[in-house]
Amino acid sequence: MNRQTFDAARMARALELARRGEGYVEPNPMVGCVIVRRDEVVGEGYHQRFGGLHAEREALQSAGDAARGATMYVTLEPCCHHGKTPPCTEAIVAAGIARVVVARRDPFPNVDGGGIRALSEAGIEVEVGTCEGEASALDAPYLRLVETGRPWVIAKWAMTLDGKIATHAGDSQWISNESSRAIVHQLRGRVDAILVGSSTARADDPLLTARPAGPRTATRIVLDSHASLSLDSQLVKTTAETPVLVVTGGAATADRTQALTDAGCEVLKIEAKSREAQLQALLTELGHRRMTNILVEGGGTLLGSLHDAKLIDEVHIFVAPKLVGGAHAPAPIAGTGFATMKEAVRMRDATVERLEDDIYVVARLEGEDTPLMSADRR
Amino acid sequence: MNRQTFDAARMARALELARRGEGYVEPNPMVGCVIVRRDEVVGEGYHQRFGGLHAEREALQSAGDAARGATMYVTLEPCCHHGKTPPCTEAIVAAGIARVVVARRDPFPNVDGGGIRALSEAGIEVEVGTCEGEASALDAPYLRLVETGRPWVIAKWAMTLDGKIATHAGDSQWISNESSRAIVHQLRGRVDAILVGSSTARADDPLLTARPAGPRTATRIVLDSHASLSLDSQLVKTTAETPVLVVTGGAATADRTQALTDAGCEVLKIEAKSREAQLQALLTELGHRRMTNILVEGGGTLLGSLHDAKLIDEVHIFVAPKLVGGAHAPAPIAGTGFATMKEAVRMRDATVERLEDDIYVVARLEGEDTPLMSADRR
Repeated sequence: MNRQTFDAARMARALELARRGEGYVEPNPMVGCVIVRRDEVVGEGYHQRFGGLHAEREALQSAGDAARGATMYVTLEPCCHHGKTPPCTEAIVAAGIARVVVARRDPFPNVDGGGIRALSEAGIEVEVGTCEGEASALDAPYLRLVETGRPWVIAKWAMTLDGKIATHAGDSQWISNESSRAIVHQLRGRVDAILVGSSTARADDPLLTARPAGPRTATRIVLDSHASLSLDSQLVKTTAETPVLVVTGGAATADRTQALTDAGCEVLKIEAKSREAQLQALLTELGHRRMTNILVEGGGTLLGSLHDAKLIDEVHIFVAPKLVGGAHAPAPIAGTGFATMKEAVRMRDATVERLEDDIYVVARLEGEDTPLMSADRR
Repeated sequence: MNRQTFDAARMARALELARRGEGYVEPNPMVGCVIVRRDEVVGEGYHQRFGGLHAEREALQSAGDAARGATMYVTLEPCCHHGKTPPCTEAIVAAGIARVVVARRDPFPNVDGGGIRALSEAGIEVEVGTCEGEASALDAPYLRLVETGRPWVIAKWAMTLDGKIATHAGDSQWISNESSRAIVHQLRGRVDAILVGSSTARADDPLLTARPAGPRTATRIVLDSHASLSLDSQLVKTTAETPVLVVTGGAATADRTQALTDAGCEVLKIEAKSREAQLQALLTELGHRRMTNILVEGGGTLLGSLHDAKLIDEVHIFVAPKLVGGAHAPAPIAGTGFATMKEAVRMRDATVERLEDDIYVVARLEGEDTPLMSADRR
């Protein structure tokens, strides 16, 4: 095995460790670290939860004295600033690490190359770029937030094999099977917010919680221009346990707004010249709140607006092997759409999995600012 | 290995051989045959083409004298009547076969248990039912035709991951990739007819031929109530090489009908009280012509009518990993559709395959009269 292959294999292990933090570390990045001395792994670690030790420190702790003269593999540039924890670069230098292999730079303003520089200046050999694509894919939501101030938008829907998300009469319970719905609950349990349109909130009266609960509790957001959300809805009745944010527009009356506020909802009025502009403004606001991942559960109108505004980053689609038919049965993405097939947004490295008889497709949208996706199941 | 397992393994081989006749034998069934003597395969054969030797005779020929005292495995009841070839039962008896294992009875009126009876009466041990489900699945189109007088209806479409078969502006070239389109040409090359609606014929101006050519040449059928098919269309311009059948209704003028006839089309007027009744009548007519497999290539309106009439037996769906969006972009199956998800037609044993980045789904519709499907790729 040559050094390049050896390095890539160690970094793959670090990436595997990093992924364990998914849902626990945000708005921090997932980071994994492996320490190797004389071709032997002497330490491993990953960032386990927001506010906890960084991956490098976890790995240094587990390596102890064996870190001296060793090589460290880390999936993101080590930090060099005093945040929740002191700079990792100091700990790496103090431990006597001889060489650091970094998958990619951290664009976070307080780091942004400074970590690499600090290590080099301390006489440590630093290499950047091993498994860079995979590392960028792993932390794509974090990178999106740091680089654009907007969270990563995950669209989720269940549809029949003939592309319908409900019957012509609006019935949608259930399209997908229990295994698919269990995956949806896992998704809900690791994101920062779950967004639905007001028609979906009205038609389905959903609870939008993760059952069982996951590592984080998502804020439930309803895009509801008229502040029409029923006070008797499951959402409003459970604001004491799980937050609800109602996004209204110019058409919302003060009475309705007050009623929802009194019932425990946060009401955020975003007046914009278009639905797309309103969504852009909402995502910027959610980015300010350091939300990293937003799960959009429909309906077709909301997903259509997001699609038209090119704001969808990733899709999780559950296709049930049934046909429902109907010229008036709704499709997953309404809106205007593209006029030609050439313009259609292509997906990158879609993964397809069977969940019993359902077909589960996960993909990211191709685009200049979308980092390469790994083929891992997410 | 006990006898049951041994028998099933031999029958599986016979089924594998049988499938090689797909596209060549219709309206005959696909049949395979294996002859085993003292646990050793001494003869194999399958029905290779319509009018050719039956599988049993092919296998007996390859076994020669070794057939004496041997066991024959055959995927369908041997014939006992004088058709294109003399009865297989006579050849089996003459060859001295001691035992015949039959996967399933042949409901063809001139056979229908008579083959099994003839063998038994000749003192041969006969067993029926080994791999019966698989054999029924293999010959489902044949069984459908024999039992109902109607051909097997295969619906095919390509759609985006958001369930659209075209953009809102009607553009559909291309949704799927070259590998998917190659599979479509294979399908076209093994069916008896390809059916499209008049809008699809107008919008896409398709040729609807198999390229490269397959084992059979499908009649191209356009459902065209007004006999509106353009004389300049690719379909009409190629009637000399490949037949075109235009199905009209009461609204077709004598002039238009004559013009299409003069251009080489066969025009068949089917007046019916509804589109569904017209489709039923058309399928019955195609059954009279001993057509076994009909491929329906859309559009959504035609597939909607077929779906509403519960006439679709099998689907071949090519899902391209792209999103096109659009509330007015058409879905694969229009029509009325079901009002509740509970009513949705379930698919049986869907198989999912990747064709490069496309997702290829093949499934049969669940229904009382649908024989069990094998999980084999078709």
